[in-house]
Amino acid sequence: MKPELLLLLAAVNLSAFAAEGMWTPAQLPGLTPQLEAKGLQIDPRSMTDLTAHPMKAIVSLGGCTASFVSPKGLVITNHHCAYSSISYNSTEERNLLRDGFASGNFADELPARPGSRVLVTVAVDDVSNTILRDIPAGMSGRARYQAIEDSEKELVRECEKDPGHRCRVASYHGGLQYELIKQLEIRDVRLVFAPPASVGNYGGDIDNWMWPRHTGDYSFYRAYVGPDGLPADPGPDNVPFEPEHWLKVQPAGVQDGDYVMVAGYPGRTNRYRLSSEVGNVIGWTYPEYKLSREAWLAAVMDAIEGKPDAALKYASLVSGLNNATKNYGGMLEGFAKGSLVEHKLQLERELREWTENQPQQQDSKPSALEALNELVEESISRQQRELYYGQANRSALLGAARTLYRLAREQQKPDEKREPGYQQRDLLRIRERLTRIERTFDAQVERPVWRHLVLAYAAIPPDQHVAAFDRWFSIDGNAVDTEALDEQLEEMYAGTTLSDTRERLSWIGKTPQEFESSTDPFIRLAVALYDSDIQMEEITKDLSGRYQEARPRFMQSLLAFQQARGQSVYPDANGTLRISYGVVIGSTPRDGMAYLPFTTVEGITEKNTGNEPFDAPPGLLESIAEKRFGPYVDKQLGSVPVNFLSTLDTTGGNSGSPTLNGRAELVGLLFDGTFESIISDWDFLPDKTRSIQVDIRYVLWSMEQLGGAEHLLREMGLGG
Amino acid sequence: MKPELLLLLAAVNLSAFAAEGMWTPAQLPGLTPQLEAKGLQIDPRSMTDLTAHPMKAIVSLGGCTASFVSPKGLVITNHHCAYSSISYNSTEERNLLRDGFASGNFADELPARPGSRVLVTVAVDDVSNTILRDIPAGMSGRARYQAIEDSEKELVRECEKDPGHRCRVASYHGGLQYELIKQLEIRDVRLVFAPPASVGNYGGDIDNWMWPRHTGDYSFYRAYVGPDGLPADPGPDNVPFEPEHWLKVQPAGVQDGDYVMVAGYPGRTNRYRLSSEVGNVIGWTYPEYKLSREAWLAAVMDAIEGKPDAALKYASLVSGLNNATKNYGGMLEGFAKGSLVEHKLQLERELREWTENQPQQQDSKPSALEALNELVEESISRQQRELYYGQANRSALLGAARTLYRLAREQQKPDEKREPGYQQRDLLRIRERLTRIERTFDAQVERPVWRHLVLAYAAIPPDQHVAAFDRWFSIDGNAVDTEALDEQLEEMYAGTTLSDTRERLSWIGKTPQEFESSTDPFIRLAVALYDSDIQMEEITKDLSGRYQEARPRFMQSLLAFQQARGQSVYPDANGTLRISYGVVIGSTPRDGMAYLPFTTVEGITEKNTGNEPFDAPPGLLESIAEKRFGPYVDKQLGSVPVNFLSTLDTTGGNSGSPTLNGRAELVGLLFDGTFESIISDWDFLPDKTRSIQVDIRYVLWSMEQLGGAEHLLREMGLGG
Repeated sequence: MKPELLLLLAAVNLSAFAAEGMWTPAQLPGLTPQLEAKGLQIDPRSMTDLTAHPMKAIVSLGGCTASFVSPKGLVITNHHCAYSSISYNSTEERNLLRDGFASGNFADELPARPGSRVLVTVAVDDVSNTILRDIPAGMSGRARYQAIEDSEKELVRECEKDPGHRCRVASYHGGLQYELIKQLEIRDVRLVFAPPASVGNYGGDIDNWMWPRHTGDYSFYRAYVGPDGLPADPGPDNVPFEPEHWLKVQPAGVQDGDYVMVAGYPGRTNRYRLSSEVGNVIGWTYPEYKLSREAWLAAVMDAIEGKPDAALKYASLVSGLNNATKNYGGMLEGFAKGSLVEHKLQLERELREWTENQPQQQDSKPSALEALNELVEESISRQQRELYYGQANRSALLGAARTLYRLAREQQKPDEKREPGYQQRDLLRIRERLTRIERTFDAQVERPVWRHLVLAYAAIPPDQHVAAFDRWFSIDGNAVDTEALDEQLEEMYAGTTLSDTRERLSWIGKTPQEFESSTDPFIRLAVALYDSDIQMEEITKDLSGRYQEARPRFMQSLLAFQQARGQSVYPDANGTLRISYGVVIGSTPRDGMAYLPFTTVEGITEKNTGNEPFDAPPGLLESIAEKRFGPYVDKQLGSVPVNFLSTLDTTGGNSGSPTLNGRAELVGLLFDGTFESIISDWDFLPDKTRSIQVDIRYVLWSMEQLGGAEHLLREMGLGG
Repeated sequence: MKPELLLLLAAVNLSAFAAEGMWTPAQLPGLTPQLEAKGLQIDPRSMTDLTAHPMKAIVSLGGCTASFVSPKGLVITNHHCAYSSISYNSTEERNLLRDGFASGNFADELPARPGSRVLVTVAVDDVSNTILRDIPAGMSGRARYQAIEDSEKELVRECEKDPGHRCRVASYHGGLQYELIKQLEIRDVRLVFAPPASVGNYGGDIDNWMWPRHTGDYSFYRAYVGPDGLPADPGPDNVPFEPEHWLKVQPAGVQDGDYVMVAGYPGRTNRYRLSSEVGNVIGWTYPEYKLSREAWLAAVMDAIEGKPDAALKYASLVSGLNNATKNYGGMLEGFAKGSLVEHKLQLERELREWTENQPQQQDSKPSALEALNELVEESISRQQRELYYGQANRSALLGAARTLYRLAREQQKPDEKREPGYQQRDLLRIRERLTRIERTFDAQVERPVWRHLVLAYAAIPPDQHVAAFDRWFSIDGNAVDTEALDEQLEEMYAGTTLSDTRERLSWIGKTPQEFESSTDPFIRLAVALYDSDIQMEEITKDLSGRYQEARPRFMQSLLAFQQARGQSVYPDANGTLRISYGVVIGSTPRDGMAYLPFTTVEGITEKNTGNEPFDAPPGLLESIAEKRFGPYVDKQLGSVPVNFLSTLDTTGGNSGSPTLNGRAELVGLLFDGTFESIISDWDFLPDKTRSIQVDIRYVLWSMEQLGGAEHLLREMGLGG
């Protein structure tokens, strides 16, 4: 029997352990005392150099993070980040999702899902001056928006002259600062190793956001480049990419209380939103999104009932909607327990008082807070339309038709004038996206689901409707003739050829006139909606331009205020490379209860029912029962740790991020947060917010157990 | 903000902390080394003397335990143990359940529910020889049963010659040993203090068996005796009982890891049952009881719908059925996780092997295990009847009629020959029980519920039926004419006068002939069932007699076997005074999760919704928010502890038991176990089985907060 745990409680202030913040690499030297006090053993300055170790080893997969772990371009990330590639290679006969996958050698490696990328950030430059210098005070919102977009496009075009690279301009603090991000874009990505879903997704949706957790959420890719070493389209002549830097895997793992940090690409946080924005999110956005997503999900479940093939196509949407509704519900629970609005109101009061006492902060413009609050109100006035019209457009075929027609319209303009997303540089991605529809579309499912979404749209107040859409479906006020609608939908799906991939792709490059004279019902609808969509886009862009003026002003005074109080401020996550630091530690989610920092393989056995998602491979269960733990046993736990908790401040986009020890060695992969962390995009709670990592020891142990990974372990410098 | 908790994990074997066993006082000196090692500071021998401190201060309420805490007979127990007395004194205008109760002085104290008793064990004598000496080998089961019963009655009669005392013979190890228990029986019990249910039953059914827990499960009674100091019927001339010994209340409470012990009257455990018995309980008893109780509960809920007055009368039954089904479900979950049957089988194999190697254990009789297994099989063959016929008899009026007719029949015999429960000494209790029916009976509710129970009985295999019962309701095989049944039930309730208390009581003392010529339908049914009930009772008594032969033989070899392995064996709980010892400590209910040993008042606020059962009094919540903790704050927790966990081995009947520190001072009241302990009647798991106590600091703090208890605190030697 494994030794039992005696819990000794020491009264310690956890704020000494938890460190809020997703810091830019450039900010790290400013945090040196804190970092060193917690246990960082390398020079913080070494992490500001994106061309050096360790940062050069951290890559983006676009939506997920990953890292190089060998000189041959081996990449480790989450199973759920490689999910679409595993699924892409799965057939009924060879079900990699179910059975897992281990490539015997380079030649056996499988193509990742088309469109997969490995992005290596090679440069980050502050371009605030370039972007903001040409913007006079008093410019209209629409003009400001365009001026910024034009500058960004110019910077990106210049940057992308370097072949094999992809660039973007990221805005910080709502537009106070802009950075040009340059990334090497590796386009040939291959699947190397994936555990079966019964390991990689153990616990599935039930355990999502939950602790205790026992998920082996890891998989391996490999990056390939052309024989010349430059990014190339997927092809047989490509060779493994040889990164200059890769992470050392530390099979000893970490212990309770150890320093850890995570480097990755967190997507979006809202830590500096106003009380009014938070109030609306709690009072309207999340409740309404939750209800509408639940109804949407119910419609999908209804439509796929008894259709196993279609169900497979919609598995990802189902999982996404499930996750979203759980997410919204959890956030509402979290908000209900806290008092974020009250805290925000207090901060705004303090900020207002402080500003009034700062002569240099006074000017004739309305206060930033006031201006921003007016914009928030304007946004709120259109939010029902945004949600329900947005949903009513979620037909894959309508989406394709709209993309294609917009592309045709944009291609009438010179490339630099085109809407971002429709430029020459976007063509490949558009083509990939239009191709992928075949894997997620089934007319028999989409038709009833879309019908539901159209009816949900019809039910909102008519003043939030879009006239062109109402006309198409003969929606009169809130009234819909559902029989007529059914007939119309039947005719639309019967009359379209867009469900055929070749037909769909054939529209790329056609002229607007060809679209306008088409009889394809989805093309006709896209054309019918175009003018009013553009009109709404113009209004949105004008509003965005005004946000781009007011938000930076507000953030500037907030930054000054916080600086005056001696507090460092990290920017909200915006998909750029960030570093969070903290410690391995449990938490007290509720009075009288604690999450322990580690779970162990015995917990897999404890949860196992034999039915998905608690159906670990029998061989694994046997090894657990027989304690065949090898070198991966943790002496204190007497077992192999599976997942661990840390105070690391993370969010979506961080998935797959390497969790590093104080020497920047790989000790785990970030993959989730606890249920109490679900509102962490809005609020970081030192005693409750916890990230969940898969322990590197479980990764290595389960790879050995599952077999076929000996060469990969060797490649990472481990084992025989 | 209160200091957060850092969890430090030390690998310690918990079996060093948890001590299984509900020991008889006489066994304690044999455990001296263990007791002292854990922290007992008084001489274990002092606890074998029932006439000395602390044992003389521990009392039974019959089904619950309590203790004297003042020289004026003040008694502390659980709120749920005093529930029926609080409810008894509650009216719509003066709802003590809702509002709580604080007597200003002795005169204000309220009568406890009729039939309430305070029982002080004054002597325990081994009477095994007396009982077993006259039983020759080879006696039939029925004769053995009678011989034992006759000896027991004789011993009890002799013992009860001492006025004010009540005696019983308790059997240990299934009849291997017998003890005569003599208790002082105090009959005038009064309610002194009860917190409102929003404190005393905070969390209600939802939190029942759960941790974290925040229940203030305490109340106070006072024992009264006649002016002569002897037990007396309730009356105005009675005076507070002055116990020789009472417990010192220790307002400093306990800390994590501290020694604790509990003295009380645990009801029944089954730790030494055979694998076949456990297998049947898991495979049939609990699943079947759960289903049938759930259906019964549904029938009650249906019947009380929209009848608030009736609902109040059936609240206790509803709560009981709720608790039972949760209990059965929890036990099945618990059993599913463990492998108790396998462990039992292994023990039986080991025992068999060991016995075969013990020449003196050999004899010509079939082995004890074999004999016992045959009896188990026989019991199983009648278990459907036992459950469903038992349920079908759960009409309060039929129960009353049966009791009354049986009493009339028994009273034809000399007192010493009467069935236990129908002797002269039982008359008062019978009268009390028959009187109480008025508080729990409503014909409009009972009729449809009984109908359900009769139909559930009718549905079991006809060979498990009782012919006399079938005849009465014209049940033919499984067939019932439900319309005729409805008519019959309507006539029965319309035609009976037993629902009137005075009428009901008037039957006490009537002759069997008067019953037999009655036209009251319930009396007629009782008469009609009598012969076959007696016949079944005879069969049961014969079986019991055979168990009384086989079980002690099995236990004797088990005891010898365990002794040979150096293990002390405590007897299964049988309602007699026992002591458990252990430590205050949390547990790890699941991998990666821990129960902390203490909850705090902040957890009340955390759970509070404002709706029952999470509706703590506003004043209490304010005091928590403002941290008005007074001397009851725990320095380490920075708050007032509410409930705490310990390894103490307890079961039903222990409710209200004083939890004592190493100096035998009162530090809490036992009131429940955690969900993982739900199978502890069958299996004690050192790492999971935990008792839940209300912390004395919360008792005292909340008494101060609720007010009106200053004189009681002083009476206990506390405060100003």
